[in-house]
Amino acid sequence: MTLRPCLLALALSLSPLPLLAADAPAKYRNAQEIIDAAPTSDWHSPAAENTLYMDLEGGRVIIELAPQFAPEHAGNIRTLAKGHFWDGLSIYRSQDNFVVQFGDADADDAAKAKSMGSAKTHLPAEFQRPAAGLDFTALPDRDGWAAKTGFVGDFAVGSDGQNAWLAHCYGAVGAGRNNDEDSSLGAELYVVTGQSPRQLDRNITLVGRVLKGMELLSSIKRGPDPMGFYEDAAQRTPIKAITLASELPEAQRVNLQVLRTDSKTFADAVEARRNRVDGFYKRAAGHIDLCNIPLPVRIIE
Amino acid sequence: MTLRPCLLALALSLSPLPLLAADAPAKYRNAQEIIDAAPTSDWHSPAAENTLYMDLEGGRVIIELAPQFAPEHAGNIRTLAKGHFWDGLSIYRSQDNFVVQFGDADADDAAKAKSMGSAKTHLPAEFQRPAAGLDFTALPDRDGWAAKTGFVGDFAVGSDGQNAWLAHCYGAVGAGRNNDEDSSLGAELYVVTGQSPRQLDRNITLVGRVLKGMELLSSIKRGPDPMGFYEDAAQRTPIKAITLASELPEAQRVNLQVLRTDSKTFADAVEARRNRVDGFYKRAAGHIDLCNIPLPVRIIE
Repeated sequence: MTLRPCLLALALSLSPLPLLAADAPAKYRNAQEIIDAAPTSDWHSPAAENTLYMDLEGGRVIIELAPQFAPEHAGNIRTLAKGHFWDGLSIYRSQDNFVVQFGDADADDAAKAKSMGSAKTHLPAEFQRPAAGLDFTALPDRDGWAAKTGFVGDFAVGSDGQNAWLAHCYGAVGAGRNNDEDSSLGAELYVVTGQSPRQLDRNITLVGRVLKGMELLSSIKRGPDPMGFYEDAAQRTPIKAITLASELPEAQRVNLQVLRTDSKTFADAVEARRNRVDGFYKRAAGHIDLCNIPLPVRIIE
Repeated sequence: MTLRPCLLALALSLSPLPLLAADAPAKYRNAQEIIDAAPTSDWHSPAAENTLYMDLEGGRVIIELAPQFAPEHAGNIRTLAKGHFWDGLSIYRSQDNFVVQFGDADADDAAKAKSMGSAKTHLPAEFQRPAAGLDFTALPDRDGWAAKTGFVGDFAVGSDGQNAWLAHCYGAVGAGRNNDEDSSLGAELYVVTGQSPRQLDRNITLVGRVLKGMELLSSIKRGPDPMGFYEDAAQRTPIKAITLASELPEAQRVNLQVLRTDSKTFADAVEARRNRVDGFYKRAAGHIDLCNIPLPVRIIE
């Protein structure tokens, strides 16, 4: 029985380990090899005032806000974090192949709802913004959801040339709303945990993305309700705290770095993923979708 | 505090509940309403000899094999199930936004590996097959991964006109292999639990799809290894049994029905998802990707 049970090359191709591709053509470098060779200048640290630490029993989720796309929501979220709004609240929804959602499970009950302190009680919808003024790095491939796709900073973005918007990829963080466009406040947030629901693009305000710790959210047991809500509060996942990194002394901040999406390294890694010719892959796709491109993140201890 | 914390309309639009869309134009019916009105003849029951019940502590996962695409693998999997190969084995890998994998964690250790009984010890790669002879229902939208996409029976399929292949959508079940194309046997199987890794299409043999119970697989705690393997056997998820439905008396089979993908109901539901104009959606996408289309499944008690 010589079969290895580990999809060996398949797994390595998407893993943070260097590829051990004895069969690969000498000149092909896979995405991880390219990233490992990146100069220090290709990495950047997200601003502390845009970085949230969500602490759960199981560990820490790190979220980056996108004020260039949702300035009003980012502002309210900072206010809520500074006021410790989420501390002691919960992840009260986990719907399979869709989202987890967190905040105040009692938000609709005026008698029980937690005060939002000095946060604003009305925000404009921030579904898209003018494309002008953004440093947009386009992808080479077509996409049925948007005329152009690419990255702006650490964020996956769609654009029609005139406007640009954050895309609902795995790990995207959005602001729950009711039927009115401008009914989100940033207190009730969701994170995409399944196949990218791009039909939501430009229909709801995305506020940022998870940089680290997705596995803590994506593996939460699905709620028994068809929409993934837990009626039973005991089944919800408690949030110990959500803290804005800039509120902490520098020594207590995580030294997290993200590969610049406007670097040659990132472009080369995308190209290596578009055309995989290692020992495992027999047929290069010649294509990649926006939401299939992982964002390289590392923590410097 | 009137904000509901439940993304109400968003949630309903993807839920099995009827839409309560007071704001929706009178003539628009969402996908679920269309499906709910389907005639009985639009539903079919997968063949018992293609249906696997995977019993875990948490419940049952139901898998449909696709012998029209992978006849040799389907045959071996039937043999393995009849021989109770997986009973007492485990899900030994869970990699975030990628796959779970199950079978014999000791498969590479000849001293410990479980016997595969009368199953074949070599199979051909079954990455694709001639498109001729398939009842292919095409989707209207373009896709960067395949010239044509659509459904054949219960399966999401890509095609270049000449050949057709199963697509790596959420819930797809594939046969782990080593670097050699023909190194899979169907004993070590993976299930896609994240954003569709379509770059694997035509690079590995897909054998079927999960019809029911994905939430039991997708929420398994991710393995500590970068590829999601668990070194510690105690962390693996035990498999009580995997049973071929045709091996059970009819009374013990699940009466599961799937909406026919060649029905007008299915086409109408796809169209309703391509252009959502209920009270929640403000902008219809006019598009849908192959892997964003859920397959309606119901169990008749």
